[in-house]
Amino acid sequence: MAFSPTSSPTAPRRIVIVGGVAGGMSAAARARRLDEGAEIIVLEQSDYVSFANCGLPYHLSGEIEQRDALLLHTPETLAAALALDVRVGSRVTSIDRAARTVSVATAEGTYDLGYDALLLATGAVAVRPPIDGLDDAAVHSLRTIPDLDALTVQVDELLATREEGQQPHAVVVGAGFIGLEAVEALAARGLRVELVELADHVLPPLDPELAALVGDELRTHGVGLHLGVAAKSIVPRPDGGRTVTLSDGTALTADVVVVNVGVRPASDLAREAGLELGHQGAVRVDDDQRTSDPHIWAVGDAVEVTQAVSGLAGPVPLAGPANRQGRRAADAMLGHRTTPQAPVLGTAIVRVFGLTAAVTGPNQATLRRAGIDHEVVRVHPGHHAGYFPGTEQVHIVATFSPDGRLLGAQAVGRAGVDKRIDVLATALRAGMSADDLAELELAYAPPYGSAKDPVNMLGFVAQNVLDGTMPQWHPDELDDVVAHSLVLDVRSRGEYERGHVEPSLNIPHTELRDRLGEVREAAGERPVSVLCASGVRSHIATRVLLAAGVDARNLSGGWLTLVAARPDVAARTAVPAA
Amino acid sequence: MAFSPTSSPTAPRRIVIVGGVAGGMSAAARARRLDEGAEIIVLEQSDYVSFANCGLPYHLSGEIEQRDALLLHTPETLAAALALDVRVGSRVTSIDRAARTVSVATAEGTYDLGYDALLLATGAVAVRPPIDGLDDAAVHSLRTIPDLDALTVQVDELLATREEGQQPHAVVVGAGFIGLEAVEALAARGLRVELVELADHVLPPLDPELAALVGDELRTHGVGLHLGVAAKSIVPRPDGGRTVTLSDGTALTADVVVVNVGVRPASDLAREAGLELGHQGAVRVDDDQRTSDPHIWAVGDAVEVTQAVSGLAGPVPLAGPANRQGRRAADAMLGHRTTPQAPVLGTAIVRVFGLTAAVTGPNQATLRRAGIDHEVVRVHPGHHAGYFPGTEQVHIVATFSPDGRLLGAQAVGRAGVDKRIDVLATALRAGMSADDLAELELAYAPPYGSAKDPVNMLGFVAQNVLDGTMPQWHPDELDDVVAHSLVLDVRSRGEYERGHVEPSLNIPHTELRDRLGEVREAAGERPVSVLCASGVRSHIATRVLLAAGVDARNLSGGWLTLVAARPDVAARTAVPAA
Repeated sequence: MAFSPTSSPTAPRRIVIVGGVAGGMSAAARARRLDEGAEIIVLEQSDYVSFANCGLPYHLSGEIEQRDALLLHTPETLAAALALDVRVGSRVTSIDRAARTVSVATAEGTYDLGYDALLLATGAVAVRPPIDGLDDAAVHSLRTIPDLDALTVQVDELLATREEGQQPHAVVVGAGFIGLEAVEALAARGLRVELVELADHVLPPLDPELAALVGDELRTHGVGLHLGVAAKSIVPRPDGGRTVTLSDGTALTADVVVVNVGVRPASDLAREAGLELGHQGAVRVDDDQRTSDPHIWAVGDAVEVTQAVSGLAGPVPLAGPANRQGRRAADAMLGHRTTPQAPVLGTAIVRVFGLTAAVTGPNQATLRRAGIDHEVVRVHPGHHAGYFPGTEQVHIVATFSPDGRLLGAQAVGRAGVDKRIDVLATALRAGMSADDLAELELAYAPPYGSAKDPVNMLGFVAQNVLDGTMPQWHPDELDDVVAHSLVLDVRSRGEYERGHVEPSLNIPHTELRDRLGEVREAAGERPVSVLCASGVRSHIATRVLLAAGVDARNLSGGWLTLVAARPDVAARTAVPAA
Repeated sequence: MAFSPTSSPTAPRRIVIVGGVAGGMSAAARARRLDEGAEIIVLEQSDYVSFANCGLPYHLSGEIEQRDALLLHTPETLAAALALDVRVGSRVTSIDRAARTVSVATAEGTYDLGYDALLLATGAVAVRPPIDGLDDAAVHSLRTIPDLDALTVQVDELLATREEGQQPHAVVVGAGFIGLEAVEALAARGLRVELVELADHVLPPLDPELAALVGDELRTHGVGLHLGVAAKSIVPRPDGGRTVTLSDGTALTADVVVVNVGVRPASDLAREAGLELGHQGAVRVDDDQRTSDPHIWAVGDAVEVTQAVSGLAGPVPLAGPANRQGRRAADAMLGHRTTPQAPVLGTAIVRVFGLTAAVTGPNQATLRRAGIDHEVVRVHPGHHAGYFPGTEQVHIVATFSPDGRLLGAQAVGRAGVDKRIDVLATALRAGMSADDLAELELAYAPPYGSAKDPVNMLGFVAQNVLDGTMPQWHPDELDDVVAHSLVLDVRSRGEYERGHVEPSLNIPHTELRDRLGEVREAAGERPVSVLCASGVRSHIATRVLLAAGVDARNLSGGWLTLVAARPDVAARTAVPAA
């Protein structure tokens, strides 16, 4: 079924949309712009539609001063601008697919509402981890306006009633994107924050060697990290606070607890209506967002999508795809041309104090799990010309198929990270290769980039790795490398003395051509594993060695990546400053 | 001819490179990394190699404090790291192709140097406009370290010797990228700057409606603009200053004059050697940067490239392509795998005080000249979520082929411009369409973007324009529109009163559905030309009118673009604030 095109003078039709935030509201607005004649009813179970859920942490922190700024539209403004019938406090309790009606529960009672087309934009619900005391009043989530209000009230009260010089304590459970935004917000308000994460590094979607940089930033800002452990119980204390006990026995003091360990599709309504579900209970839809019922569409956090590169299927709770799916569903139900649905890249970004961390496409762990052969390339170029003041390194890790296709990319840094991830997300969508990245023509003036942009540099290094010009070794091979090769550190003596691999030979790259004999003697029959700070000087050195007939490899990402992936190396060898 | 692969133990070979900056030095470094055995000689006529020519204006301004920061390498550092034989003060005066030698002139005398492979990276020379008095000592260029030194000395002296309260005067001739950087730098030093440009708007590569925003920014910072005029003469005055007379008779006072009216390929050497030249005297090369002589390669500002989309051929003096061409030439001459050469997009960016302006691909004028059919789409979305503090509008103009393919894009704004142009440059390289832009999955968190990124918004609007959902009219049709249609302004009354098209009818978009009768009555038989501030509200209004059977079109880019393209409209109708 498709409605007839927009301007045909058919009888009024009714579109009912369940859920009035990202995907649902995008669909409603698009449907109205395509069809002035349709009756469009939006049913939202909460008291708020079209609110900025991604903005919640920034009102908690005070950075977004006015709570009203989060309320992008009201039923009244939506009625005025788009002639939408928006009904808040209206929960859909069931769907009668045969009769094409939904049952709507409100404070005033229940009623049935007929539809010609139904859109489910029911979103996701927070996963409740198995923690004793999770229903404690001090435990909060951060997904809705009421969540925000409750948490803000408690934080305000803690700050207002604290004794002179005392710092309230917060425990945040879950170090994903929203968890880190909550950490930053609570720290900005002056709370001492302890962060608990089950994975062995913060921001699980990030590769560990980049997540380590985020972890350092959190510690630098006074956040306590508890990694590889779960929260087990939350118990009130006589002084009014709580004790949060972790799986390793650690007992943390908490005046407030924020739990964000992920979400699952809110697909109960769809399941009970007998619609086909996919992985993890997500509603299965076709390329036009249509469910197994031809009169019902679904979008957003509740639906199953195919992930790019890995081909894995499941829900991906992100605002961007939800908005575009809403638009596509409206197009489809109104018979408008729909655009081809692309697999989801999972592009995401988070600010963590002064750092930005961002990902697009699968990470290394996902590629391994999916059995996809790949090379890992790591670079640390400046975000703009090095001679222009204020250069910050962009730490990029990217993966490529053996034939050179970009598979995924991640970046962390203090400036220019969002730009490079957006370029790489575009390149990934386009199916670009290392050769294509090398040839990208990006905007260069000293305040903005370099003649060889970080993305070009990534392409150059990937070309060298993939065509064999630069054989490389990786931080996770360190123990084997130390045992079976000569580690040659081509940094300056000063850099070497501030921390290095033990044992290793230090020959600055500018002296290498004259000191090849020393390398041969020290290496004997062993290959040579070269490193410098970021991989640039050691690339030259590796080429010198290879030309001399020495079996040499270059450390991917250099010392910068090595100490992030293996902090024990730096701790073992660092010489305290005199 | 190609050299044998890197590690083959052939006899030493000599690579001679003429020109030691961007393309030449990239080639030298890449050649060494690929071939440890080759003799690599770089001949540079000036006293500086590998200097940051794009950074010169920022040392003039004082933003880059140390002049040494511009000198990225010296012959000594290049010898140490890469075993390069770099000879400064060495001008190549001729090539003997039969003998495979070049003649080198130095302060000590002249010698011949044999080569197995020769690379010409001779760059460009400044165009000398027909101005009387161009050789005056007060007239400067800004392309080399000596240019910078001379200009800096004069500016320092003017500032040191000025009388209390006096502001030295600078005239900058040429409002291209480097000209604007010079303007900014001179203004930063405290000079009063007058800018003279032959085109009728600043930054000629930019479309006029965006260039107007740059012009406003310049005026706001006290720069005098003289557009559509040429400088005719520079004449010394008794007081030590100069008088710069323009083609319209204006006489400007100048203590210092900077002329940057473009460059032409420095291809004399190639011409005299009988190498094939292309458009505008640029050296013709194949996909491997090889000239018509199989032993000679050429790169950078001196060579002819094919421009993307338009297919036009000619030189494109940009650092990024020069660097990549250098790398490719080294690969080619050493028999290494070369990457396919992509047509040049001409991606470029400039900071002008608080604004950023950037382009990729052909502008509207180039498309018209090349006879390429296109639709123009204009949007003004916020650079990040509107509810997050500090949102700045990104003003984007993009062109699409009738079948939806992106042809070119430009953007101006105070934040987020570089990111969007880089994404669009990547999309352009990938051959993406409006549909693809709509589906791009870019990184969203409130500090960085929106769930619907400006690039997605551009895609959405382009889809609506291209599939007929949103018929549009353009600022350059204004006079015709006023004469033959009803102009319907759907902004609020307050916005309308601050400036509007005369005559026009004002009905806020939220009232339109109830006041359709007024529109019909006012329009009579005429079509309705709708507008709002940016095109969003008027899009809804246009859809309402079309659904009601009214022939309606939406103003592309809205009032924001209209007043930039037609400032006379605002001037004519603006009501002074009470």
